[in-house]
Amino acid sequence: MRLYDYLPSGNSYKVRWVCAQLGITYTHMPIDIITGETNTPEFRALNPAGQIPLLELDDGRTLAESNAIIRYLADGSPLVPSDPFDHAKMLQWQFWEQYRHEPAVAVARYIHHYAMDTRATELPALMTKGADALSVMDAHLARRDWFVGEACSLADVSLYAYTHVAGEGGFALSDYPNVTDWLARFAAQPGHITIDRVPD
Amino acid sequence: MRLYDYLPSGNSYKVRWVCAQLGITYTHMPIDIITGETNTPEFRALNPAGQIPLLELDDGRTLAESNAIIRYLADGSPLVPSDPFDHAKMLQWQFWEQYRHEPAVAVARYIHHYAMDTRATELPALMTKGADALSVMDAHLARRDWFVGEACSLADVSLYAYTHVAGEGGFALSDYPNVTDWLARFAAQPGHITIDRVPD
Repeated sequence: MRLYDYLPSGNSYKVRWVCAQLGITYTHMPIDIITGETNTPEFRALNPAGQIPLLELDDGRTLAESNAIIRYLADGSPLVPSDPFDHAKMLQWQFWEQYRHEPAVAVARYIHHYAMDTRATELPALMTKGADALSVMDAHLARRDWFVGEACSLADVSLYAYTHVAGEGGFALSDYPNVTDWLARFAAQPGHITIDRVPD
Repeated sequence: MRLYDYLPSGNSYKVRWVCAQLGITYTHMPIDIITGETNTPEFRALNPAGQIPLLELDDGRTLAESNAIIRYLADGSPLVPSDPFDHAKMLQWQFWEQYRHEPAVAVARYIHHYAMDTRATELPALMTKGADALSVMDAHLARRDWFVGEACSLADVSLYAYTHVAGEGGFALSDYPNVTDWLARFAAQPGHITIDRVPD
């Protein structure tokens, strides 16, 4: 199994984190999105959408979209709630993450890292949208340790990925105390790896 | 069970379509997103994210995000592939729909309907992004009848919702012949309902 991956990507980190938790091994295929390695004909043949992370199974089948990949890898594990409603709530937070959170929090971080000279004008709108997302998370965590049920699920994994580095996008995480408590709780789990790590 | 719903919404239509297919009955709660009914304190108490569709179970629990709602309602039905890889591919297309397709194709339609006086400057970028999404779909459908496996799944439902009305957003569906064939195939299914219908 091969994981096409860009190390600073929070979306890729979700996959690395789940693999580390579940003891899943793979061949790490670094792809530099900044120099356009997701737009080469070779990579587009693997993923026509031109996105990482991409998982390639040993039989050549490929799977894209971080939240779909981790759902596949974590099937049957404690990271996927078995109760049908809790399972749907996990998906609810993952779809919300990709629609309301990532396009603001992750994109603001991207601009700060790579595109301040060309895309800084986008930041005010992204800061408003990202702050709204962080506020929704903070309110939800006021009386809960985890996003769904009583344990860490893929909903937490998906939301942790870009939230814990939101400061790199200009967000003040100290404004969201329930979120910062949850970030610490998440990172204190046995087997936790940081975003800059490829599991051994 | 109550469905909070705005009839022209493709996201809400996904839920109505699945309920019609599977014979699931509910109380229809119309919400006018144009006049701000998703931003009232009463609605925010039900869904802090302020979005429709929203499903409220008889015990008061709520579920948001169209693709999570239809996954919950269709659990165990033929619309959800039982093979783990096909199941993950279904999710891949659904996450892609919410990240790459809906924010362009659905938003362009929204602007054409409701916001040409204030948001028309967004259209050129949305047209480019939407055309890219429709091209990815057209290429995928070149040798397939359905998005995943050999039958209609929730991936098709999610993508049909805004694709079939993409013309209202200024897209020329005739440029994507595999997509138009697939739209016709989808609508020819027994029990199909159109977007303006609430199931009896």
